[in-house]
Amino acid sequence: MSFKITILGSSGAVPAFGRFPSSQLVEIQNEFMLVDCGEGAQIQLLKFNGNLQRINHIFISHLHGDHYLGLMGLLFSMHLNHRTKELHLYSHRGLQDIIITQLKYSNSALRFRLLFHELTPGIQETILDSKHFTVETIPLKHKLDCSGFLFREKIKPRRIDKDKIPADISLAQLAALKTGSDIMDDHGKIKYKNESLTLPPRKSRSYAYCSDTIYDIDLINIVQQVDVLYHEATFMTQDEDKASETKHSTAAQAARIAKEAQVGKLIIGHFSARYKELDLLWQEARSILATTELALEGTTFEIHE
Amino acid sequence: MSFKITILGSSGAVPAFGRFPSSQLVEIQNEFMLVDCGEGAQIQLLKFNGNLQRINHIFISHLHGDHYLGLMGLLFSMHLNHRTKELHLYSHRGLQDIIITQLKYSNSALRFRLLFHELTPGIQETILDSKHFTVETIPLKHKLDCSGFLFREKIKPRRIDKDKIPADISLAQLAALKTGSDIMDDHGKIKYKNESLTLPPRKSRSYAYCSDTIYDIDLINIVQQVDVLYHEATFMTQDEDKASETKHSTAAQAARIAKEAQVGKLIIGHFSARYKELDLLWQEARSILATTELALEGTTFEIHE
Repeated sequence: MSFKITILGSSGAVPAFGRFPSSQLVEIQNEFMLVDCGEGAQIQLLKFNGNLQRINHIFISHLHGDHYLGLMGLLFSMHLNHRTKELHLYSHRGLQDIIITQLKYSNSALRFRLLFHELTPGIQETILDSKHFTVETIPLKHKLDCSGFLFREKIKPRRIDKDKIPADISLAQLAALKTGSDIMDDHGKIKYKNESLTLPPRKSRSYAYCSDTIYDIDLINIVQQVDVLYHEATFMTQDEDKASETKHSTAAQAARIAKEAQVGKLIIGHFSARYKELDLLWQEARSILATTELALEGTTFEIHE
Repeated sequence: MSFKITILGSSGAVPAFGRFPSSQLVEIQNEFMLVDCGEGAQIQLLKFNGNLQRINHIFISHLHGDHYLGLMGLLFSMHLNHRTKELHLYSHRGLQDIIITQLKYSNSALRFRLLFHELTPGIQETILDSKHFTVETIPLKHKLDCSGFLFREKIKPRRIDKDKIPADISLAQLAALKTGSDIMDDHGKIKYKNESLTLPPRKSRSYAYCSDTIYDIDLINIVQQVDVLYHEATFMTQDEDKASETKHSTAAQAARIAKEAQVGKLIIGHFSARYKELDLLWQEARSILATTELALEGTTFEIHE
């Protein structure tokens, strides 16, 4: 089953060199979600063959323009393309007011319901508990109330070992085996040990999104051993004072967090407009963590089972 | 002196096939202005080498998202790039509320003043009276309060004919000649007839922007003989019922208005997402008015003196 992150934009606050502001399409087992929705996100979605009507959840980390200004246009396009399915929006306080104000002046009533979920600043909370995965917030320290998002697949069923399964097993027993139960005989004794007929579950994958944030070692525990961590890397070490001043991180700092947390892969993004070429940022992070990748627009990172 | 229109976007309500929503950069004698500011306008400005800090006036025709959603991102970028010069915004009621609401939740105070100018629905009024040109509104009939914009250079000074100018003419007399006055001798009699020393003024150029609008013959008088008319052409004649229903125009209707008004050139735009190729729209309009051009992104239309 799919677990993919597609980068729609990874520019810092000011778009530059053709780079669009922050937005990502996250797909987990056919559930499509947006993480941040910077200006032009819908244009990027079209460009990279994303189907905007399949998106049912949009997570906005904070209300700086480069993280949400593409949302209103996306909503209008969903409406004009006849969407009727409700849409969940997760954000710190203010997004509802911003959207309602704009709907009012455009004299528009959307064809679909918006369900607003207000995030609680400074704490880690579960905001979506879906059949196959959960989404939790990650408290981030920035100039504004800001949260990252942690996507985690739930523990998966044990897999039936087709080579070993006896012919007399019923469907109910198969279901029980998947949950880890043994199969009992009529006298209440173990007939088949679960492990003799099943294989371990496929691994539960995880993705953490951290933008925007200061260098914050509290994150290490929260993102411990995730398969993929996106961590902002607005600046290089040579501009570390600028990073502190604007409450952002450097590429080296992002890599240090990722390394300490023993993540599988690090993606860096939210690049400042001062850097035309990104290779030096990449090198800076890779010198600390070799599995670092750049959040280049159109790139899809797939997490395999 | 320059008079140029650069197309930044010309998509209809839903962006499609890489086309961005409505926005144009208008330059008259080194004054840079935006007409509409759809999502991604700042990205397009960068792409086509426009300098966003030189823009001092932004005219928003109406508050449908595809005509203004790029404004907030542009303002943030102007701010982050240290703009201090005030900026004039012209719009129907609501824009100020929309901007103030978003500034509030991003906890931002811009470094520069915004001067809001509220347009009056349904009437033609002068909203900018600059040294070299004026801007008037054009009342448009659409689903929402909507105005086009008419840019007209003021009458220019008569030109001194250097081949004919006598050596005894003073600077004050030169200035008087430019205004059309004759030169008198000490007895109050005409010494030099103005026409004998001057050439007629260069022509005063004009540009009319009409988006979005139903087919409205009232426009013919207002845009009479402008050098360039931009008129929306969301649909082709085969979809004329759709045009009526959504209060838009067809390519043929745009061309009919332009032809009746005897404009120099027609630019059509605001193309519906149903048309991947624009050639048929172009052909439809050109069969009525041969000087029709498509509003293709990145194209600059220059009006020569």
